[in-house]
Amino acid sequence: MAERLSAEGRGQALGGLAGWSEVQGRDAIGKTFIFKDFNEAFGFMSRVALVAEKMDHHPEWRNVYKTVEVVLSTHDAGGVTALDVALAKTMNAIAG
Amino acid sequence: MAERLSAEGRGQALGGLAGWSEVQGRDAIGKTFIFKDFNEAFGFMSRVALVAEKMDHHPEWRNVYKTVEVVLSTHDAGGVTALDVALAKTMNAIAG
Repeated sequence: MAERLSAEGRGQALGGLAGWSEVQGRDAIGKTFIFKDFNEAFGFMSRVALVAEKMDHHPEWRNVYKTVEVVLSTHDAGGVTALDVALAKTMNAIAG
Repeated sequence: MAERLSAEGRGQALGGLAGWSEVQGRDAIGKTFIFKDFNEAFGFMSRVALVAEKMDHHPEWRNVYKTVEVVLSTHDAGGVTALDVALAKTMNAIAG
């Protein structure tokens, strides 16, 4: 099982993750992606969904038209793990 | 443009929409759909996304694993319109 990252490890990981930051009041990381329109936003979500399902690690996310707000945390570990960092990197790559 | 429904019209529409209710503090209707797993939840979202894009009327929605929380309101009209009722009906039909 993935282990919860230390504050230092989380800080290091965030340093390499453009646009991601700690979520206030939770051991989680988050980012708001803004696209051109719903087509692009949901296209992004569809691509991420396939990856997430394959990883068996899923995001919490909210979509309103062209925006997608994402929160990542590993439920079983009670915080941010390497799985979240990997999914965050993938999301950045997919969003381009 | 779709016109905002009266409180009476909204009430009547909700009577025919299983599981939907008024959203506290907003002129909007909402429902939480719970599926078997992420595959079913995102499958539902994908089917709804195609319909929403065709209608040019999009939901606000949040997905966490097997749950999809939906809020519908018509931004341009400042409240619930026939478009929201139509999209809610479609969502119920897709969710089965």
